[in-house]
Amino acid sequence: MSKSISIFDTTLRDGTQGEGISLSADDKLKIAKKLDDLGVHYIEGGIPGSNNKDIEFFKRVKELHLHAKITAFGSTRRKNSTTEHDENLQRMIDAGVPAATLVGKSWDFHVHTALQTTLEENLAMIGESIAYLKRKGLEVIFDAEHFFDGYKNNPEYAAAVLGAAREAGADWLVMCDTNGGTLPNEIQEIVSGLALQLPGAPLGIHTHNDCELAVANTLSAISAGARQVQGTINGYGERCGNANLCSIIPTLQLKMGYHCIPGDSLPQLTNTAHYISEVANVNLPVNQPYVGNAAFAHKGGIHVSAILRDSRTYEHIAPELVGNKQRVLVSELAGQSNVLSKAQDMGLSLDPSSEQARKVIDKIKNLEHQGYQFEGADASLELLLREATGEMNELFTFESFKMLVEKTAGSPVVSEAFVKLKVGGDNLYTAAEGNGPVNALDNALRKALLTYFPQLKDMHLSDYKVRVLDEKDQTAAKVRVLIESKDYSDTWNTVGVSSNVIEASWEALVDSMRYALLGQISLENDTEVSSGPRGLVNH
Amino acid sequence: MSKSISIFDTTLRDGTQGEGISLSADDKLKIAKKLDDLGVHYIEGGIPGSNNKDIEFFKRVKELHLHAKITAFGSTRRKNSTTEHDENLQRMIDAGVPAATLVGKSWDFHVHTALQTTLEENLAMIGESIAYLKRKGLEVIFDAEHFFDGYKNNPEYAAAVLGAAREAGADWLVMCDTNGGTLPNEIQEIVSGLALQLPGAPLGIHTHNDCELAVANTLSAISAGARQVQGTINGYGERCGNANLCSIIPTLQLKMGYHCIPGDSLPQLTNTAHYISEVANVNLPVNQPYVGNAAFAHKGGIHVSAILRDSRTYEHIAPELVGNKQRVLVSELAGQSNVLSKAQDMGLSLDPSSEQARKVIDKIKNLEHQGYQFEGADASLELLLREATGEMNELFTFESFKMLVEKTAGSPVVSEAFVKLKVGGDNLYTAAEGNGPVNALDNALRKALLTYFPQLKDMHLSDYKVRVLDEKDQTAAKVRVLIESKDYSDTWNTVGVSSNVIEASWEALVDSMRYALLGQISLENDTEVSSGPRGLVNH
Repeated sequence: MSKSISIFDTTLRDGTQGEGISLSADDKLKIAKKLDDLGVHYIEGGIPGSNNKDIEFFKRVKELHLHAKITAFGSTRRKNSTTEHDENLQRMIDAGVPAATLVGKSWDFHVHTALQTTLEENLAMIGESIAYLKRKGLEVIFDAEHFFDGYKNNPEYAAAVLGAAREAGADWLVMCDTNGGTLPNEIQEIVSGLALQLPGAPLGIHTHNDCELAVANTLSAISAGARQVQGTINGYGERCGNANLCSIIPTLQLKMGYHCIPGDSLPQLTNTAHYISEVANVNLPVNQPYVGNAAFAHKGGIHVSAILRDSRTYEHIAPELVGNKQRVLVSELAGQSNVLSKAQDMGLSLDPSSEQARKVIDKIKNLEHQGYQFEGADASLELLLREATGEMNELFTFESFKMLVEKTAGSPVVSEAFVKLKVGGDNLYTAAEGNGPVNALDNALRKALLTYFPQLKDMHLSDYKVRVLDEKDQTAAKVRVLIESKDYSDTWNTVGVSSNVIEASWEALVDSMRYALLGQISLENDTEVSSGPRGLVNH
Repeated sequence: MSKSISIFDTTLRDGTQGEGISLSADDKLKIAKKLDDLGVHYIEGGIPGSNNKDIEFFKRVKELHLHAKITAFGSTRRKNSTTEHDENLQRMIDAGVPAATLVGKSWDFHVHTALQTTLEENLAMIGESIAYLKRKGLEVIFDAEHFFDGYKNNPEYAAAVLGAAREAGADWLVMCDTNGGTLPNEIQEIVSGLALQLPGAPLGIHTHNDCELAVANTLSAISAGARQVQGTINGYGERCGNANLCSIIPTLQLKMGYHCIPGDSLPQLTNTAHYISEVANVNLPVNQPYVGNAAFAHKGGIHVSAILRDSRTYEHIAPELVGNKQRVLVSELAGQSNVLSKAQDMGLSLDPSSEQARKVIDKIKNLEHQGYQFEGADASLELLLREATGEMNELFTFESFKMLVEKTAGSPVVSEAFVKLKVGGDNLYTAAEGNGPVNALDNALRKALLTYFPQLKDMHLSDYKVRVLDEKDQTAAKVRVLIESKDYSDTWNTVGVSSNVIEASWEALVDSMRYALLGQISLENDTEVSSGPRGLVNH
């Protein structure tokens, strides 16, 4: 039997059913691109026509020219109706994607209670809907909702549902544990039975984590013959979440001898998990298997001395295989080599054994301890490293800012900012209003700098993220602000941290402008302004 | 074979190895009491002598007179030494508790690499240590570290380790998957084999979650004959954590026919999980199986209309069995039926077909379109619904606020807020500083209200989240702020949205105070302040 597993990601559909997960069309497109880079086979994009975000996603995703197949999700036709007049099916076709995920009932209780129709009509709804989508040229993945509950209640009917779907031409028959209540040995038994009953059928598995068994249930189904896994990144999904692809893929690939994604993509797993959690704006649990920051972190004293002898003593795999790294929590040994390799990437000469190198590494560690994160803020890191190597030329000096927000009942809120700077010997004091405090600061800062550096008008802030770091500390908690900036050719990211959201935003804003001015010649030496690339590397 | 399972909790020992988990002696005593109320059989308290907290815990826990057996953890005697002169063993005896958890090596690789001794000496260390503790009158639970990795590498030696422990009189032989890398089918196979090899031996299982399989691995071992489960509440523990008792206990008891804790304790499970997460000062993930706030929360529109017909359609167990409850999330994915069922939960009379109902649903839809999200802000939703049904009594009126943030190079940032309110006919104008702008606003608002409503001093903000909604619009993007507030008995969540982060925070802050004052009698009617519950429903 083939050892190739088809990976079907539903982060963008089932994942958004998770509490607190809400994705814009832009977020969805970013995630789709990232999933495609990882090498998944199917990306379920959403429910076409259900809301504007999903409509926009299906329209724009084609421009990305992804390798993965995009699928549109929808239900079988309405009862006592025809496929030709079914709005749902029409929307799936209109989405213009190569595949459709069609969900149908397989639990007799649900057919009676939720659909309120007969068992025969449900089979007709499934068969006709699949045949119709196939005639329209779509690949059809059939999701048999509540399959295991259905099988336990009425095995003949559940099997008949899969039989009808297969006969109508479905490309995949996916058994769903929709309520997440089934146990691994039950899954093993039921899937093995079906593999015998429907020889050669392309079976898939879709599980939920209500008993903390979604991963185990998926592995059971694969062992019993299923060849497609449906799941989400980080296990996002309704209630307790869906099966977590970040745990399933490495276990299947590294421990069970299956092939899921290209081997050279597996080290992208940790980065993919973190990236998607950032876009979704939810914290990635530190203890998340394989990809969490603590997944290979050692705290116990005995453990630490043993792993320093041989890391296999307390690590089940080499963390690098999934792009993660070992951390020793007592002494932060990690990081150093990263920083040095980063400096090298930027073409900066930083001797690893020098006092200079030790100082900047200490500084970065100290900043990370305060909550800075340079993984998503390359430009701020480059500024730090340039300062350390003496290759930084400051073109302006900050003196002070004031920020005033005023609101009177019945009137719109007003934000004003006042900024004092020194540029090339000149003292500047500017004031500006804005749509919110950060916008006001941005406007006041620009007003001051534009007279000297007119090319700054080509740059703008393209993304702004706020993350509360220690939520236990109420409103006095620390806040990390990440700003993405763009001009016609480049994109760069900067970071600021403070217990004050305004100060954190200001820091990231100032870094963004400082970075934009890298490569500019100091006004005090020369007024000529270079038009070449600002940095030494591409971003 | 007996269907009784012994529950061994190691939250206080292995649990504290988790990143970010640190417990004082007081915390440990509180948790021990709570675990005892739940009905676990063993509570592993810590490592006697390793630190002052554990020494204090072992001293004071006796005063609690718990039913559960307290156990002290330690390693086998040092190599090439005697039990009588072993400090570790002496400390376990001195702890004065009825049971000892003795950890020993069972992986030949570890004996060579970490212990750096011979296989024979390791067997002697195990046998002699157990016999010694038994002679001193202790019950001995033997934890065979890395048992499964050991078995896979050298099955004879791993089995010999258990044999030596049994012969020396160990009361439990616990097989540990220390690195968390073993799969459920391997556990099943190995434990079944051992159950045959050591007939009648009291086997136990201790797993870690590095492959997201700790729960499944525990269940596999139980099915294969193990009768003790070692785990932690909420799965706390080193790296990816230990086996989560909050998932294992209900699955064994409700789905597999085993008996773990008294049946009338099971509904205490959710409360126990939340209580211990509070004491440990870590957030309980909303999606945690069985006990999380979202474990029985429904967001999808189709799901919601089905569960309103019959909750078994999308719930694998009745949430009340584990002390949790069903929630319907109000989100743009769902609709009218969600809002109406929410109003019903709150005891508000909202006729579904009334003009009143239509208006409030339109208002909520409109707010959601603007970026409000009520699924994480029950209290703001309740305020809206009470307004709509005319059951809202405003105790203060907002007039204006000013917020000033000032930063001069070299000095710390300063945040000040000025608030104008009307309370019961009085005009108030207060000013306050704060650690950040939101904290300053919170302080100024409290200053004004506390004179009239002194009970507000019991409430505080416990969580603050910021989400930028449309990142394309740079710093003029909209921001959603979610605030969680607490007092001694309740937790409630409020929301604010604006393109101005300060205004959004203000909105959520004001809603939090308004909610805290629900049920208070208006000052204009009566100055008596009720001390009863603030709302009409439990939160």
